[in-house]
Amino acid sequence: MNKRLVIRLLGAIILVEAASMVPSLLIALLYREPGDAPAMFYSILLCAVVGAPMFLLARPERTNLRAKDGFGVVALAWILMSILGAMPFVFSDLIPNFFDALFESVSGFTTTGATVLQDFDRPLHGVRFWRSFTHWIGGMGVLVLTLALLPKLTGRTAHLVRAESPGPSLSKIRPKMGDSAKMLYTIYGALTLLEFACLMLAGMDIYDAALHAVSTAGTGGFSSNGASIGGYNSLAIEIVITVFMLLFGMNFALFYRLWRRDAKALWESEELKWYLGIALGASLLLAVLILPVYRTFGEALRYSTFNVATVMSTTGFGNADFNLWPIPAKMLIFVLMFLGGCVGSTAGGMKIMRVALLMKGAKREIARTFQPRKVQTIRFEGHGIDDSMLSSTAAFFGVYVVLILIGAFIVSLEGHYDVETNLTAALTCVSNVGPGLGVVGPAGSFAGYSNFSKVVFSLLMLAGRLELFPILVLFDPQLWKK
Amino acid sequence: MNKRLVIRLLGAIILVEAASMVPSLLIALLYREPGDAPAMFYSILLCAVVGAPMFLLARPERTNLRAKDGFGVVALAWILMSILGAMPFVFSDLIPNFFDALFESVSGFTTTGATVLQDFDRPLHGVRFWRSFTHWIGGMGVLVLTLALLPKLTGRTAHLVRAESPGPSLSKIRPKMGDSAKMLYTIYGALTLLEFACLMLAGMDIYDAALHAVSTAGTGGFSSNGASIGGYNSLAIEIVITVFMLLFGMNFALFYRLWRRDAKALWESEELKWYLGIALGASLLLAVLILPVYRTFGEALRYSTFNVATVMSTTGFGNADFNLWPIPAKMLIFVLMFLGGCVGSTAGGMKIMRVALLMKGAKREIARTFQPRKVQTIRFEGHGIDDSMLSSTAAFFGVYVVLILIGAFIVSLEGHYDVETNLTAALTCVSNVGPGLGVVGPAGSFAGYSNFSKVVFSLLMLAGRLELFPILVLFDPQLWKK
Repeated sequence: MNKRLVIRLLGAIILVEAASMVPSLLIALLYREPGDAPAMFYSILLCAVVGAPMFLLARPERTNLRAKDGFGVVALAWILMSILGAMPFVFSDLIPNFFDALFESVSGFTTTGATVLQDFDRPLHGVRFWRSFTHWIGGMGVLVLTLALLPKLTGRTAHLVRAESPGPSLSKIRPKMGDSAKMLYTIYGALTLLEFACLMLAGMDIYDAALHAVSTAGTGGFSSNGASIGGYNSLAIEIVITVFMLLFGMNFALFYRLWRRDAKALWESEELKWYLGIALGASLLLAVLILPVYRTFGEALRYSTFNVATVMSTTGFGNADFNLWPIPAKMLIFVLMFLGGCVGSTAGGMKIMRVALLMKGAKREIARTFQPRKVQTIRFEGHGIDDSMLSSTAAFFGVYVVLILIGAFIVSLEGHYDVETNLTAALTCVSNVGPGLGVVGPAGSFAGYSNFSKVVFSLLMLAGRLELFPILVLFDPQLWKK
Repeated sequence: MNKRLVIRLLGAIILVEAASMVPSLLIALLYREPGDAPAMFYSILLCAVVGAPMFLLARPERTNLRAKDGFGVVALAWILMSILGAMPFVFSDLIPNFFDALFESVSGFTTTGATVLQDFDRPLHGVRFWRSFTHWIGGMGVLVLTLALLPKLTGRTAHLVRAESPGPSLSKIRPKMGDSAKMLYTIYGALTLLEFACLMLAGMDIYDAALHAVSTAGTGGFSSNGASIGGYNSLAIEIVITVFMLLFGMNFALFYRLWRRDAKALWESEELKWYLGIALGASLLLAVLILPVYRTFGEALRYSTFNVATVMSTTGFGNADFNLWPIPAKMLIFVLMFLGGCVGSTAGGMKIMRVALLMKGAKREIARTFQPRKVQTIRFEGHGIDDSMLSSTAAFFGVYVVLILIGAFIVSLEGHYDVETNLTAALTCVSNVGPGLGVVGPAGSFAGYSNFSKVVFSLLMLAGRLELFPILVLFDPQLWKK
């Protein structure tokens, strides 16, 4: 491991984090609420004190990283960033317990949106904005941001970006890393501003609109309202949020191609067809299933589309407590929690592309059982998919399921929650959705779990956000060798 | 589809089923209980009336079957056999509702052991023996039995046996199908007799010993006792059953090689090491988890080993209601329900070999992420495993999980059971275990589900027993073409 380079990189990331806390400090200064601005200020100071020496004093001899080290850097960066990102919650006394604050911070950066917060009334506009802003930072990736700002930091950046960006990639849209990172952030920022404007038009005040725009953009789900989006009781707001949740679950490469006036990109994307097809089908089916709960089909559709969008994009906003819906509706939500959004989006989950590849693989397997001699090639987005890619995808799925089961098993050692709660809590963390079923449902919280379980959940969220392997590599002794 | 040959084959299978009902008739004649012998007699008559004309009148011009037709025959045979096998329950009025009886019959032949029976007191020794004997018939495969008795029925039998025998095969131990079918049944019968003798020595009466021996051999789990094995409250009986459940979950090819004095077969079998290793590890872990419930570690170990063996071998006998255990223990049982026994045994589930391949694939995938250029070959039982085999295994796992989720979703439409019950009910049916958690736990039953759901569960059990694909092919219109 090129330790000096790693330390320098981590220092840079911490400094970027300090900079990203500045907007929240400004908001706090504007509102002048007790404890708000100091919490943000001391957090920025801490980041600067920790990050500046690491960045300035570590002078690497080489600027190369092994692939494995790249994963290690990403994992360490995310852990460090989460610990420092928890400080505003601790300093402001909003979440005084460190493990709770860490859980909240990890949940923020990984864009999960699972919360231990129960006090939604204390006036802390700065710290609360930081809570949602972690989604925005984590959604696109802090490393991508750091490399966009400081492209000369390391020689080969592909490893790092690969470790932080979700999903397998079939085509490369980024010839120069610095450029494409800037391009991604430009699109990301523009879409966030657009949502901010739409939310203002739909009737939100400026603070809430900004907060929910960054929360949606990262497909995170933290709200300033204790009842989430349902608390506004506004159809217009729900429609805006639904549309943008679905948009931020789409591959950003599509927006780039649209921006370059390549409109047929939309028609060509097979993953997009699967994504929207599943969203549409699931919304209609869910509307039928929850019809007994609501007065009209229109109303049922309002709740079904919002909740399908929130679960598939892994945002986790709520406009209804799906925990109280009929059991088949809950089962459908459970299944949707696995899927996630598109590759190259800010959404979590398995990713639609992987799900589509697994389905195509299974279909071919059935065909192959009956016609063993016929050669059948799987194609996706125009590319031939070989067995090696399929077995990678399958291995990912296997590790995904096993991780959820192990996580659910470990937290069940506490002994006071039922199987449904533990299982969906682990699932919703790995998938970065946010709410689960049972005690951790949309109206509940993770507050009742022990500190130990919260650390387990934090690791699950990180493993989910970083697509499993970077976190696993930390447990490999080989990483720590010279 | 070679319809005449299919009809002739189905006829033969029905006649074999009629013959397999004779022992139960003899038992009924011995005990002279009201309704018992007539129920068995009329069932045999019905099988003869249906099967004989099919077998005698359909004269196929060719004796060849396409691979796809082979799967169709197996699926049709199992459905037909289950319908006719349900008749003794209906005729004796033990289970008067046809859908309940069908569920029980499918549960028997697929060696699941899930039951709707609640009346364990009516004296019907013949019909009850038939209920357990279906496990014995279904465990090794009725088609294998038919081909052992009538080897000249069809030209290429490999398709048929492949469709009915569980698990992917790496080596072929059957040069001549007729011979190896006879060999399998000889080992099977010998082990069953051995267990029968051991159970007598452990204190069971002759009828119960015979009934539990055939139930264990098929890894089924139907008992004549309402409280299952726990009802005998005998450590000796539990030890005998535990040992034989584990034995019948092993690959029969091993017994064949042992019989040929090839003792190193045991040391060479990698799957066996995984199987026994998991069983041992899970038993110890489970004993620790349930320690709070029992007085001593020895007692906890008694219940943990029995229940690990019953779940891993997918038998489903009970000596305790694991539904009442602490939640982590239930989570462990839940995970074990996926695994199943070894390839080439009478056990259901995913099969240990597939689980091992998936684990090895995932391990390689992690290694490959960090060292993309290093070529790593996966080996199992001395054979190199290529990507195609891995992606097949993964596809199987994917379809397995999806089938459980779809099944759980469909039965949840009833709306009166919780997620835990529906999910584990579908899982336990596909894995052919028997009991699940919640309402369908060891002390509960499937009786509360609607007729429609029972048909769904029956299809899940058949899909599980026949390893998914034969049942799926029935829904393929191509099968029904000339």
